[in-house]
Amino acid sequence: MRSVIDILDLSVCELDELIKTACDMIENPEKYSDICRGKKLATLFFEPSTRTRLSFESAMLELGGSVIGFSDAKNTSASKGETVADTARVVSCYADIIAMRHPLEGAPLVASLNASIPVINAGDGGHAHPTQTLADLLTIHREKGRFNDLTVGFCGDLKYGRPVHSLIHALSRYTGIKIVLISPSELVLPENIKHDVIEKHNMPYVETDDLESVLPELDILYMTRVQGERFDDQDEYERLKSRYILNAEKMKSAKSDMIVLHPLPRVEEISVDIDKDPRACYFKQVANGKIMRKALILKLLSEAKLEHPARNENYTYTATNPCTHKRCISQVERGLDFAVIQSGESKCCAYCESVIKN
Amino acid sequence: MRSVIDILDLSVCELDELIKTACDMIENPEKYSDICRGKKLATLFFEPSTRTRLSFESAMLELGGSVIGFSDAKNTSASKGETVADTARVVSCYADIIAMRHPLEGAPLVASLNASIPVINAGDGGHAHPTQTLADLLTIHREKGRFNDLTVGFCGDLKYGRPVHSLIHALSRYTGIKIVLISPSELVLPENIKHDVIEKHNMPYVETDDLESVLPELDILYMTRVQGERFDDQDEYERLKSRYILNAEKMKSAKSDMIVLHPLPRVEEISVDIDKDPRACYFKQVANGKIMRKALILKLLSEAKLEHPARNENYTYTATNPCTHKRCISQVERGLDFAVIQSGESKCCAYCESVIKN
Amino acid sequence: MRSVIDILDLSVCELDELIKTACDMIENPEKYSDICRGKKLATLFFEPSTRTRLSFESAMLELGGSVIGFSDAKNTSASKGETVADTARVVSCYADIIAMRHPLEGAPLVASLNASIPVINAGDGGHAHPTQTLADLLTIHREKGRFNDLTVGFCGDLKYGRPVHSLIHALSRYTGIKIVLISPSELVLPENIKHDVIEKHNMPYVETDDLESVLPELDILYMTRVQGERFDDQDEYERLKSRYILNAEKMKSAKSDMIVLHPLPRVEEISVDIDKDPRACYFKQVANGKIMRKALILKLLSEAKLEHPARNENYTYTATNPCTHKRCISQVERGLDFAVIQSGESKCCAYCESVIKN
Repeated sequence: MRSVIDILDLSVCELDELIKTACDMIENPEKYSDICRGKKLATLFFEPSTRTRLSFESAMLELGGSVIGFSDAKNTSASKGETVADTARVVSCYADIIAMRHPLEGAPLVASLNASIPVINAGDGGHAHPTQTLADLLTIHREKGRFNDLTVGFCGDLKYGRPVHSLIHALSRYTGIKIVLISPSELVLPENIKHDVIEKHNMPYVETDDLESVLPELDILYMTRVQGERFDDQDEYERLKSRYILNAEKMKSAKSDMIVLHPLPRVEEISVDIDKDPRACYFKQVANGKIMRKALILKLLSEAKLEHPARNENYTYTATNPCTHKRCISQVERGLDFAVIQSGESKCCAYCESVIKN
Repeated sequence: MRSVIDILDLSVCELDELIKTACDMIENPEKYSDICRGKKLATLFFEPSTRTRLSFESAMLELGGSVIGFSDAKNTSASKGETVADTARVVSCYADIIAMRHPLEGAPLVASLNASIPVINAGDGGHAHPTQTLADLLTIHREKGRFNDLTVGFCGDLKYGRPVHSLIHALSRYTGIKIVLISPSELVLPENIKHDVIEKHNMPYVETDDLESVLPELDILYMTRVQGERFDDQDEYERLKSRYILNAEKMKSAKSDMIVLHPLPRVEEISVDIDKDPRACYFKQVANGKIMRKALILKLLSEAKLEHPARNENYTYTATNPCTHKRCISQVERGLDFAVIQSGESKCCAYCESVIKN
Repeated sequence: MRSVIDILDLSVCELDELIKTACDMIENPEKYSDICRGKKLATLFFEPSTRTRLSFESAMLELGGSVIGFSDAKNTSASKGETVADTARVVSCYADIIAMRHPLEGAPLVASLNASIPVINAGDGGHAHPTQTLADLLTIHREKGRFNDLTVGFCGDLKYGRPVHSLIHALSRYTGIKIVLISPSELVLPENIKHDVIEKHNMPYVETDDLESVLPELDILYMTRVQGERFDDQDEYERLKSRYILNAEKMKSAKSDMIVLHPLPRVEEISVDIDKDPRACYFKQVANGKIMRKALILKLLSEAKLEHPARNENYTYTATNPCTHKRCISQVERGLDFAVIQSGESKCCAYCESVIKN
């Protein structure tokens, strides 16, 4: 059974195929309006995320399918102590494909190892959110026409910003990408992403805390929110905040064909005075996200075979839990086979992908 | 883009057309069972209202369309600080029409000014709830056969009763309407409605606190609930309460063709002993509400064009917020263009329609 | 109007017919994929039960129908003081069939007496949950091929275990059934079920607190959870708990064609190490539950006629409420006709079926 837990579960070739399908869906929507008739998507949202849930539901309905699910864990069997594995097995009797959001990292992977239907990760804690990255990629494709030879700025909270990490991963597979990291020192990109992704793929990059100085050279500016609660020193936060707010004044110095992306919801980090600037592409991202979810649902349903998944052969199973990450599903799920992924000399947890220290 | 925020957004001619469509839907349901195939209604309920939400959803399904949405703001991006304007823009990518319920007055108007799809107000605080009024009007049409020459009693909480205000507005456009206002002194109809609607349209009216004395002359009795919490003096409330309870005994003095309406849910203000009285029309109102919502959805989808709405030219925009009403959306929405409607010498807020004092 | 509130509302003959339909649905799903087009199921869940709700919704969608509803009472008119009777009348305007879950016993019966559409009880407090029993029966039929001549063990919490009580009721109508009751002394089967069901139908039975000693003779083992909070003495609970956990070691002594059932969700009472044992049928039960719900919805919609239900002639109506059960709907519902069912010398409440003491 094919599932998508992480953006890297899709090869570059598969991404191209998804984008091609998405573009065909835009041009010929009626070709797809009945293609999933009789199929059911289960949206299992163990934490609320209205935007993502409505996007998946809208996608499935536009394919002619239907939707069941829940939008909040409070009302689920999980609150009665059911494991994610059992929930996945049960829902496999009710639906044809699952989109799962969960506060614990690795939960969608556990679901995919137990479900007899495909599972799409709709966001698991700070770990991964591959369909957001698909939205970003389709927007770049449609607005810039290429994935190569782009100078891409990431601005704001680069430390906790899951979409930022995921898009850097995705872009690392293309050539000619230059990365510009713009953040306060409190919120710089984690060392392991810098080392294992950017440097490993020989992507040139610069780090700065000054948006205005680098804005003129960017082809793409990916904005994220700087949350006050990340700062120990609130005076420092107030002092810095406005530097990371994008407005019409700052946009004057940007290229005429630069595009501005944002995973939404925004709060104040993008001023409404640029909403009508043609370079503002964050609402286009929303539309593109729905289309890529349509393409992904269609792909996975087409590939689905009614076989139960086997244990993953790339994992080394262990008797005791080697993962110490607090938000990992392995900390709470009963009956879980603990598993490790070996990559060169380093090991990481198979569920949350945290590095395991010896 | 045509939206319906207030019952007066629909002309008398359009109301006639909606009622005509509704009657045709009753006679020929199969003609409409597939008419909205492929269309999606988003029910954005920022506060719970199960009855209204299920009515809209049922309406859309009977037209062959489908539904996405949420039933409670807790699980939405709004709780992450998203504006109503941004929510409306995002949902415009997912659905073809919006039904919005919001605790803040004017929120559906803000949505309609930013959405690229039609917005129906499904209740915004104490401001407006036009589809309830459509339910009332279809019930009057079907039961009485006319909108003219009717003596209409409104009983109970006339101060806060939004459906009462709205129906008085709607009836003010017909002739021969006599209004009978029945309430305790604590809950009389607000002065501005008496002055700007009833008196302005030269509608004869009487005010009384005694239901029984006026019951024999009524063609229509619109009941509402008298809530204990509205009274400072609980003894006074207990003393008064039973006077505003309609029961079989009191119904004896009413005309044989009088009809009893109630927006529901009722608590104790209508005794169950009259539920089988043929004059009790409150459950017929429920069915009629669904049908009018079907007619309205169909009308707005037919008229919808994919244009972004322009700023409203009837508004005078202002730099600072002139509205002081606490429950107005203008108090919290970031990036809002403050706006005023001038009507003769008086000005009111464009969003909540509160009078602005100079 | 035909409703199903209790498993005994269905005759043995009707059960056979439902099972026959279910088997045909399994073999020829496409025959049924459009059979309820245009019909709407309302899932009125006044308390959360995700598994049951998704099962009903999935069932209706697979019949080509659609679904409206709510998953939690917090967001309903009930929180504004509406009676169950009024909710049932209102929803009759929006849907074609109701599945109702309610924390108060008898609430679905009250709904069925007021709705103009069929009502299926999806669980009312500790009272009844007939569609769970339908799932159990189809699983027994498919796995054992018969309902007669079976030794059936019930293990765990037999005192509060609603599915246990209901399945014993259902099996009492067949011949050759031997019942084995396995529980700690704190959680034995209530006397009235032992007396009025098992003994009345001359079913041989044994009681024990030792699972292992009786396991070899069972054809069916129905597991339930032993909840710690049922015990006054937590040390006693900890001591006992493992005796009621089913694992691979214990399964060695069971018959090779015994089947293990569980209403789910399980917590720890069935070890995951038997999930792949072919005798473990609890996930098959889930799939069978959905199919029986499809068969039941189809049957009730086929039988539905648009008549309002009459007062039930088997009831003796009373002026004052004779029921003292705290969780009975008759304790809170306004305007209810109190009713008693006389059976020989004993009387019970028509709503929650508690015995009424004189």
